[in-house]
Amino acid sequence: MDAATVDTPLYLQLAAHYRQAIASGVLAPGARMPSVRALMRTHRVSLSTALQACRSLEDEGLLEARPRSGYFVQAPRRAVLQPVQEPEPGATAASPDPAPYSGIHDRISDFVVKCERHPVVTNLALAFGSPECYPQEALKNAALRALRRRPEVLVSPVPPQGDPGFRAVLARRAMAAGMSPTPDEIVVTHGCTEALNLALRAVTQPGDTVAVESPTYFGLLQVIESLGLTALEIPTSPSRGMSVEALELAFATHLQIRAVVVVPNFQNPLGCVMPDEEKARLVALCDAAKVALIEDDIYGALSDDDLPLRTAKSWDRSGNVIHCGSLHKTLAPGMRIGWMLGGRWLARIRMLKHAQSRANDALAQLAIAEFMGSHAYDRHLVRLRRLLKAQRAATAEAIAAHFPAGTRLSMPSGGMMLWVEMPGGRSSGQVFDAALAEGIRVAPGLMFSNSGRFDHFLRISCGTPFNPNIEAAIRRLGQIVAAGG
Amino acid sequence: MDAATVDTPLYLQLAAHYRQAIASGVLAPGARMPSVRALMRTHRVSLSTALQACRSLEDEGLLEARPRSGYFVQAPRRAVLQPVQEPEPGATAASPDPAPYSGIHDRISDFVVKCERHPVVTNLALAFGSPECYPQEALKNAALRALRRRPEVLVSPVPPQGDPGFRAVLARRAMAAGMSPTPDEIVVTHGCTEALNLALRAVTQPGDTVAVESPTYFGLLQVIESLGLTALEIPTSPSRGMSVEALELAFATHLQIRAVVVVPNFQNPLGCVMPDEEKARLVALCDAAKVALIEDDIYGALSDDDLPLRTAKSWDRSGNVIHCGSLHKTLAPGMRIGWMLGGRWLARIRMLKHAQSRANDALAQLAIAEFMGSHAYDRHLVRLRRLLKAQRAATAEAIAAHFPAGTRLSMPSGGMMLWVEMPGGRSSGQVFDAALAEGIRVAPGLMFSNSGRFDHFLRISCGTPFNPNIEAAIRRLGQIVAAGG
Ligand SMILES: Cc1ncc(COP(=O)(O)O)c(C=O)c1O
Ligand SMILES: Cc1ncc(COP(=O)(O)O)c(C=O)c1O
Repeated sequence: MDAATVDTPLYLQLAAHYRQAIASGVLAPGARMPSVRALMRTHRVSLSTALQACRSLEDEGLLEARPRSGYFVQAPRRAVLQPVQEPEPGATAASPDPAPYSGIHDRISDFVVKCERHPVVTNLALAFGSPECYPQEALKNAALRALRRRPEVLVSPVPPQGDPGFRAVLARRAMAAGMSPTPDEIVVTHGCTEALNLALRAVTQPGDTVAVESPTYFGLLQVIESLGLTALEIPTSPSRGMSVEALELAFATHLQIRAVVVVPNFQNPLGCVMPDEEKARLVALCDAAKVALIEDDIYGALSDDDLPLRTAKSWDRSGNVIHCGSLHKTLAPGMRIGWMLGGRWLARIRMLKHAQSRANDALAQLAIAEFMGSHAYDRHLVRLRRLLKAQRAATAEAIAAHFPAGTRLSMPSGGMMLWVEMPGGRSSGQVFDAALAEGIRVAPGLMFSNSGRFDHFLRISCGTPFNPNIEAAIRRLGQIVAAGG
Repeated sequence: MDAATVDTPLYLQLAAHYRQAIASGVLAPGARMPSVRALMRTHRVSLSTALQACRSLEDEGLLEARPRSGYFVQAPRRAVLQPVQEPEPGATAASPDPAPYSGIHDRISDFVVKCERHPVVTNLALAFGSPECYPQEALKNAALRALRRRPEVLVSPVPPQGDPGFRAVLARRAMAAGMSPTPDEIVVTHGCTEALNLALRAVTQPGDTVAVESPTYFGLLQVIESLGLTALEIPTSPSRGMSVEALELAFATHLQIRAVVVVPNFQNPLGCVMPDEEKARLVALCDAAKVALIEDDIYGALSDDDLPLRTAKSWDRSGNVIHCGSLHKTLAPGMRIGWMLGGRWLARIRMLKHAQSRANDALAQLAIAEFMGSHAYDRHLVRLRRLLKAQRAATAEAIAAHFPAGTRLSMPSGGMMLWVEMPGGRSSGQVFDAALAEGIRVAPGLMFSNSGRFDHFLRISCGTPFNPNIEAAIRRLGQIVAAGG
């Protein structure tokens, strides 16, 4: 172990040491890992440090515990997958074609109806974690306490823009991502979905065009269509996010682009993070062009690094950025709570929120304010990030092992999904159908664009702790893909 | 007491007897009411019956309890107020003029901003009851039990169209109002406001015209405006609701009427109930004209008679009626829960609900399902109706006593508001300003129409148990009105 790592906990240093040994082949696949006792002696560490190191390598999928025999280096999987390809340079950017307004909806509805008809055994299409990823007991207790502390809350008027205490906590938490809103600038919403609706309603009129990433979250395409807007898909790099050059080109054409919607951190479905300099350029470009920038930061807190990523909003000086977020991925999939910073449209957004659904009820906000105001929230996030990292690694390993040669995948540094490129013209629609018939649900690439451009992709979620069922489902998926869908 | 009343509880028969005596002058204002002991002797009733009768007359404002001296007939108030005038025949119906799209919003926002600036001491503008009208403890306990029974609820996916158990209870309760939905036809929403938004979005396109009552609930005008629709105000009788003849005329013109929104039961602000035959005609007319009928039945359960009123939906055979409701008035102003029956637009409404805010979270629904599924809900409604009846009576009495001669008011048979016509060209805007400066908030008639037609009206709410503060506020209001606003 080298001296540069003195700030890192001892067990992580120890784990890094053996990770290196495994990567270099010093510890070959199938080899027995030194026993815990040996580790304690060799490195002069405590039992708990030695154990933690082994467990952490096990979580990463590098070691395997065999009952009564100790840890072994995992059996060889295949070489690391190639990352997903960049969009063809210029192709879409030169002549941005507004994705057809119709189509996407029917296609998504089609998938939804099919899913309703077929029982799902293994769901690899959910974009949030399974219940065990979240602090069920602590949230329940916070809700019980809120009810006892404020017994009148269910029969009293709801607080106008959301509970002030909750907004104060959100304002404080926003600072970690480089923003500095006052509680008064925050509007509490029914999830990020309502926030996106309000943002788009605030800055567009039906018939307007909205620039989005390509591929993008299909829920966003639904919102855009249902509001009578047209989505314009901007080429998006699986490693650097939306192309600012392509967007600039799009602005320069005749199209009535009134808003840009981006997911700069752990984009859905790509999983990529826009580099900070790209975020800053994007904010400056939209500001100069007087096109509203709507940022969906729903995954931003889920970075492996334990540092919340900066938001586009953190570069906003003119109020041109509307920032949206929610608890759905990070804390409580069962609570419909989101929020937004309205920028210069704050007053209009408040009015629209009032006209659309009135202010949110207080109970959930009181409970969450208590939890998010405490260190328990930080501890939860650390745990969740570890879980997701391990789940992503294990899922990617399984894909590498079971999908046909030529499969590509970029490994995200946070979040809970993998974007998988299938080789040789496989159709995600066909793979989806064949998998669903066997009770396995994945999100077909077709859902993430109004074009058919991503038909050879699958989005595979890693929200559930990896287990033999998931392994079996991915093996079966790999066979389906290999068989040509 | 006559024999026809054998089904009525004894104390109400006794109360009716003395109400009659007071009305006829047999018991003059200021006279001492026979003592409880005397009542027991004369009518051969129990102590509790005699006491209940006196208290009920006291609640109505007919008797006054003086400490240690017993009950006295209330000091003379003024003769019963004249009912509000019918709209001028034909005037609006002949040439329906689409209310201007712009205007209403600024005006309402204006009132809202003024209210934010001035502290309110007595709020007579709320359209829901004060906390003591609702079963705080029972709801809190139901929520505590739901959390303990389903501890995973906050961290698990939300049920797609709302909790099935809650929808089953709603379906059962809907039968009392003449409807027979299956649980699957019900979509749970964030309040009646979201239901109205979804209904209008399902059946209209921006630019379309929507027929509404005149006057109507200002929140509805806001929804219509915010969706880019135009409101067409149809003459509405303070005793019989929207004029079906006038609506027929409006359909016959060139206007693009795509939907009609009505509040058939205890209309806001008129308080009137459409007679059943009018509801049936309205349903038939809209069906024949292929114009969607959206029914807002948020007050329907609040009838003095303890019989839920029939809904327009109960005459619907073709799916042309969308029915909307919520808990906001009847059970829990602090919970944003509403519902809708989507009729033939059910699939589209589900899609829009999903795109607008996703399904509602489960906790509140679980708690409410338990409460609404039990007799406790029926008992609560009986109590609430009694309270509201007494509060309306007392408020009307106070208005009669303190407002200038020529003031008119129609007494609703349910709900929680009075629609007061001021004499001699008083402006509600001016009265509103003057009252607000003294900490009294009323809803000015101006808010209930895109025209200035109702400027000489005030809507005065009776959601809070009548008390000396309210009496004083109404006295002061009367002086302001008398002084000309
Ligand atoms: C990018 C993105 N935005 C928004 C949402 C939905 O957010 P919420 O559940 O808070 O409405 C999702 C969920 O899949 C998402 O991936
Ligand atoms: C006629 C009518 N509809 C709807 C509403 C609002 O309902 P909710 O609070 O359930 O959104 C009101 C409240 O004032 C109302 O009077």
